[in-house]
Amino acid sequence: MRMRKKGWAEPYLNSHPECVIFDGNSKRGQWGSGYASVHLEIGCGKGDYITKMALANPTTLWIGIEKELNVAAITAKKIVEQEVTNALLLPIDASSCLSWFDDSEIDAIHLNFSDPWVQRGYRKRRLSHGLFLQEYSRILKIGGNVIMKTDNRSLFEFSLVEFAQYNYQLMEVSLDFRSTHNDDAISEYEAKFIADGLKIHRGIFKSPKR
Amino acid sequence: MRMRKKGWAEPYLNSHPECVIFDGNSKRGQWGSGYASVHLEIGCGKGDYITKMALANPTTLWIGIEKELNVAAITAKKIVEQEVTNALLLPIDASSCLSWFDDSEIDAIHLNFSDPWVQRGYRKRRLSHGLFLQEYSRILKIGGNVIMKTDNRSLFEFSLVEFAQYNYQLMEVSLDFRSTHNDDAISEYEAKFIADGLKIHRGIFKSPKR
Repeated sequence: MRMRKKGWAEPYLNSHPECVIFDGNSKRGQWGSGYASVHLEIGCGKGDYITKMALANPTTLWIGIEKELNVAAITAKKIVEQEVTNALLLPIDASSCLSWFDDSEIDAIHLNFSDPWVQRGYRKRRLSHGLFLQEYSRILKIGGNVIMKTDNRSLFEFSLVEFAQYNYQLMEVSLDFRSTHNDDAISEYEAKFIADGLKIHRGIFKSPKR
Repeated sequence: MRMRKKGWAEPYLNSHPECVIFDGNSKRGQWGSGYASVHLEIGCGKGDYITKMALANPTTLWIGIEKELNVAAITAKKIVEQEVTNALLLPIDASSCLSWFDDSEIDAIHLNFSDPWVQRGYRKRRLSHGLFLQEYSRILKIGGNVIMKTDNRSLFEFSLVEFAQYNYQLMEVSLDFRSTHNDDAISEYEAKFIADGLKIHRGIFKSPKR
């Protein structure tokens, strides 16, 4: 389902340069200035996770990437209305904006309920595909982690193997994450999966040494 | 539940030296003589898996290890009565008999529904504990695999991380193995889990280079 165009989305994003960055190239190497750490969520959707985590962890800068403008605008609205000062939004495709980050600039990358791209021939679009994993390990600090959550079994199976092939080390894995952990924000999106009885899988993968 | 002592077990095992090996030290380096490959199942239980796989793969030698004599005797009986010529049984604890194998002598190690040892303080007994993984990588050929199946979620989570920490590479993983694969024998033991609606997890882990 393609979202209907929201007339207000683009003007809203344009009118909030304090938290919405359309071109971040000039911030390369300086994203984390003033913060203890920088976390990136790729595919932040409506921004529920990132705003909750930012409010709970004020010394960390939380950067969300969301290419769908109509959805990104909802994230921007949350950041603005909840007065979150330690969150930024990049309303751009990940393949176009990861180059805005310097080597070793990011402490952790979050992939939450990414599109599984189940259709044949579309694997390269998965955010846990090797093409992305190589770029993640460039921008991650030594010892930095990719933290992935999904309800999709076959995406998770693919990802476990893909991270291993690209020399990430599996640090922690839960096949029913919410049965044992409660220290991580639950977005509205995830809450629906949980209500449907789906099990949430989570893996923490340590970036390879370069 | 401890099994009651079966009076016939030990005499039966003793009377079948053609397939039951109590001391295999002298076979070191020669187990696979005459075979294309050697597969080892550690904890073969009543031997359903190993006898089925041996009958289906006659050019491979299948060696089962089972420390519980009453159970091992049932495996021996299957090997004898089904006239399986390419299966051997070692009715010994794995920690005592892996030294009977030379470096790089084994093509694959199977761990099927191993005891999860859930009690605190007993992790070292898990067959996927690092202490075992180091010994497996010694006896496995370069590129040899450990293939693990279990219905136990927390044992599987533990194992995925443990194999990674000991530099095994995850080659394949299925969180619901039987929904997608049908080329692997199903033991009576596993059939009960499947009938109970439990999902079978399987991982294939490539031994690290030494």
